[in-house]
Amino acid sequence: MEKLKIADKSFSSRLFTGTGKFGSNQLMEEALKVSGSELVTVALKRVDVADTTDDILNHLKDPQFNLLPNTSGVRTAKEAVFAAELAREALGTNWLKLEIHPDPKYLMPDPVETLKAAEELVKLGFIVLPYVHADPVLCKRLEEVGTAAVMPLGAPIGSNKGLKTFDFLEIIIEQSNVPVVVDAGIGSPSDAAKAMEMGADAVLVNTAIAVSPQPVAMAKAFKMGVEAGRMAFEAQLAQPVNYAQASSPLTAFLDD
Amino acid sequence: MEKLKIADKSFSSRLFTGTGKFGSNQLMEEALKVSGSELVTVALKRVDVADTTDDILNHLKDPQFNLLPNTSGVRTAKEAVFAAELAREALGTNWLKLEIHPDPKYLMPDPVETLKAAEELVKLGFIVLPYVHADPVLCKRLEEVGTAAVMPLGAPIGSNKGLKTFDFLEIIIEQSNVPVVVDAGIGSPSDAAKAMEMGADAVLVNTAIAVSPQPVAMAKAFKMGVEAGRMAFEAQLAQPVNYAQASSPLTAFLDD
Amino acid sequence: MEKLKIADKSFSSRLFTGTGKFGSNQLMEEALKVSGSELVTVALKRVDVADTTDDILNHLKDPQFNLLPNTSGVRTAKEAVFAAELAREALGTNWLKLEIHPDPKYLMPDPVETLKAAEELVKLGFIVLPYVHADPVLCKRLEEVGTAAVMPLGAPIGSNKGLKTFDFLEIIIEQSNVPVVVDAGIGSPSDAAKAMEMGADAVLVNTAIAVSPQPVAMAKAFKMGVEAGRMAFEAQLAQPVNYAQASSPLTAFLDD
Amino acid sequence: MEKLKIADKSFSSRLFTGTGKFGSNQLMEEALKVSGSELVTVALKRVDVADTTDDILNHLKDPQFNLLPNTSGVRTAKEAVFAAELAREALGTNWLKLEIHPDPKYLMPDPVETLKAAEELVKLGFIVLPYVHADPVLCKRLEEVGTAAVMPLGAPIGSNKGLKTFDFLEIIIEQSNVPVVVDAGIGSPSDAAKAMEMGADAVLVNTAIAVSPQPVAMAKAFKMGVEAGRMAFEAQLAQPVNYAQASSPLTAFLDD
Repeated sequence: MEKLKIADKSFSSRLFTGTGKFGSNQLMEEALKVSGSELVTVALKRVDVADTTDDILNHLKDPQFNLLPNTSGVRTAKEAVFAAELAREALGTNWLKLEIHPDPKYLMPDPVETLKAAEELVKLGFIVLPYVHADPVLCKRLEEVGTAAVMPLGAPIGSNKGLKTFDFLEIIIEQSNVPVVVDAGIGSPSDAAKAMEMGADAVLVNTAIAVSPQPVAMAKAFKMGVEAGRMAFEAQLAQPVNYAQASSPLTAFLDD
Repeated sequence: MEKLKIADKSFSSRLFTGTGKFGSNQLMEEALKVSGSELVTVALKRVDVADTTDDILNHLKDPQFNLLPNTSGVRTAKEAVFAAELAREALGTNWLKLEIHPDPKYLMPDPVETLKAAEELVKLGFIVLPYVHADPVLCKRLEEVGTAAVMPLGAPIGSNKGLKTFDFLEIIIEQSNVPVVVDAGIGSPSDAAKAMEMGADAVLVNTAIAVSPQPVAMAKAFKMGVEAGRMAFEAQLAQPVNYAQASSPLTAFLDD
Repeated sequence: MEKLKIADKSFSSRLFTGTGKFGSNQLMEEALKVSGSELVTVALKRVDVADTTDDILNHLKDPQFNLLPNTSGVRTAKEAVFAAELAREALGTNWLKLEIHPDPKYLMPDPVETLKAAEELVKLGFIVLPYVHADPVLCKRLEEVGTAAVMPLGAPIGSNKGLKTFDFLEIIIEQSNVPVVVDAGIGSPSDAAKAMEMGADAVLVNTAIAVSPQPVAMAKAFKMGVEAGRMAFEAQLAQPVNYAQASSPLTAFLDD
Repeated sequence: MEKLKIADKSFSSRLFTGTGKFGSNQLMEEALKVSGSELVTVALKRVDVADTTDDILNHLKDPQFNLLPNTSGVRTAKEAVFAAELAREALGTNWLKLEIHPDPKYLMPDPVETLKAAEELVKLGFIVLPYVHADPVLCKRLEEVGTAAVMPLGAPIGSNKGLKTFDFLEIIIEQSNVPVVVDAGIGSPSDAAKAMEMGADAVLVNTAIAVSPQPVAMAKAFKMGVEAGRMAFEAQLAQPVNYAQASSPLTAFLDD
């Protein structure tokens, strides 16, 4: 399968992962290893930047993992920029998942503050991957200010509802010149496969793996789902049709 | 992953396949090998039973493949029983995919003739896997007359529309004491994965692999999709929820 | 709007209704009057055929209402025929809604017993409207034995899930030479409207009206929903398209 | 049914309409009269503001109609404000449907420019009804700057795809303190009814009426669909359930 390039990095795995909600950091590490994920997002808040022995980072030292700090918890562009600077210093990476969600119930992202922050962060030298609603115009504007990818949501974070924004993801994928990573809402390997089949460049999965009674097996399942979907996309799926076409030709052969 | 048992056989692969519509028998053989499929259905009509050098059978000799002759083309129970007897003699197996679809346009199966034929074929010593509409009562009655499995459709044959019978497959899976194989309509690895995630025991895929510009790659994609779905089912997926639960806890950490 | 003809009757209203689950017979009568329904189904079991003062019948005496006795509760063709004879004698009508559902949990209909009973009842002079799964072949066979209409389900009875059998209803409507009445599962006026828009000849609604906190208002809402859908069908709806076509032409008019 | 209040006006009809794409202005007038619509949007571009005999306005003089000029065609906040001022002067109303869609293919609205324009227009004394993506955070922010309503889209303009943003409309309706008008994508009376059933305060329909072969009948159908949906909402619909609840109690009554 084709490698995915974002900014200066290239990835064999198109499954990005998160680090929240796991039963333990040990379990998280095992699951993420098995997932094959090469880009792992970590909430800045969860890292004790003053403590070099911080546990979560110790579990993400494998060279397989590239860290993608995120700004979860901020409510404005200003807070996001401040958090990004902290993250860059603490974690030694200029990659950033930009998340601005003032809403405490559904954690839906703020389009206006996100665009403002993205523009500034790009100027400050960050590789910005913004988490946004599946809004085709917003995605285009983010691309225009220089984000390295766009991360439209499939459904509300943690809802496991799948690709509820399907019709808009289609437009985003069609129009985008930067990679499209479907983030939030993906609840099962079939959801992940479907996103890949429609031409998304990657997916980010966290809740569905982390809260499974068997996170390691579930991580493996998602890895396969993503690969299945990507492989099908590259091999070109047939379109749905209204009329049946029998696999086995219908023939009244007993009349012969 | 758990093995699947149907009648006296057990299968590592939960992807059943068909042999129609491939560009060539050589391509078919390659794709089916890569798919890992251990149960392969062949229309009796397509086999020249008088010719020991028949080409399609020569391409299905690998011990990986168990043959599942099907009665595609028959329109009544009587024709089905006759075809089944021919198939048993010609192919040396008492396994049978029972298909009775009098309708030449959508190839939808006939519930009444199918039940009648199934009852008789079971008495005649066949291992019967009937292709039916996703009708929970019919599936139950087929089980009661002794079919080895039931094969409800996801959507019209060859339509690639996916799991359009989702709500009824759920009931069938919940109620069935024999394996449930989703047959017809599965158009993509994500469809196959979804069927497995909901607890189907296997899926049968033909058109979507055979008509792909790259059938071998597509066969691999379906293999992974099925495994992803089954693994997720065994590891237990979380249910969709209405309220977001952030993977990264929302905290106004910059106020600290 | 075009009138609907079934057998020897013609109907201005395409909303058929049921009599179960209402808070009181008085409330039922009011709601059914307001609904405009001209065909009302009554479970034979609920009628005390020996009692000429039976309450439920007293509430259905308005000439607006044609009674459609149903065989709810029977489990076989034989029971159905017996119940039908009782109904004809007790209620003085040869119209019959044929329901055979052996399954006590989902009340899904039995295709084989239903076809058998339908064939016999037609010979016995009944006007048969069979409740069935949305199975295109079964509907065709029922038409062939002489049923006056077919009544495929939209979703399990009482589930309010709407048109979960959409793709199969489309085929049934396309192929049918007798009226198609969507029965079971219709949970809202929008569901009813959608069934009519796709070309169904009528819908039968019971639960969604009867269990509403305001059955009379809900009956009115369904009446309007059905009429809206039918009128739109007759006036021809546009098909969904992928590309936007602005209602207001997009013109950069300020540049002019 | 409850009246709808927006700013200083109250409406008996919850069906807002547009004036584009009709075969003739005469046909438009007839259809809009029959629709019962009391708020009618007109693209400023289509009005010849210098010509007091302008035809389209002559067809909208009935006191039933309140005009809602829209800014269709503008691409930035600045252009929108300019267009709004022109519209206010020309049409003598400070009501405004704010539309900013730089994208010529799907006509999706720009969230950032829309918020900026809305804020300014509110300060300038306009009653602003902004057309936006179904973005819950954006809708909340628009409400906070003082818009009189929000108009989230159901699907791309003119696509007739229905409520593709269902899950997000639910959140918007739950959170909003101003009326929510579903705009764009509504292709049939059942779509309109469904929007109302979920609690939307109104819908705006244009294409589906205007391009129908029978716009007047279709306008009537939409009127009834909207009323059906609203009435059902007020009378409270039951929720979908998984288990069947028979309308007619299941009883093996023939055993009695």
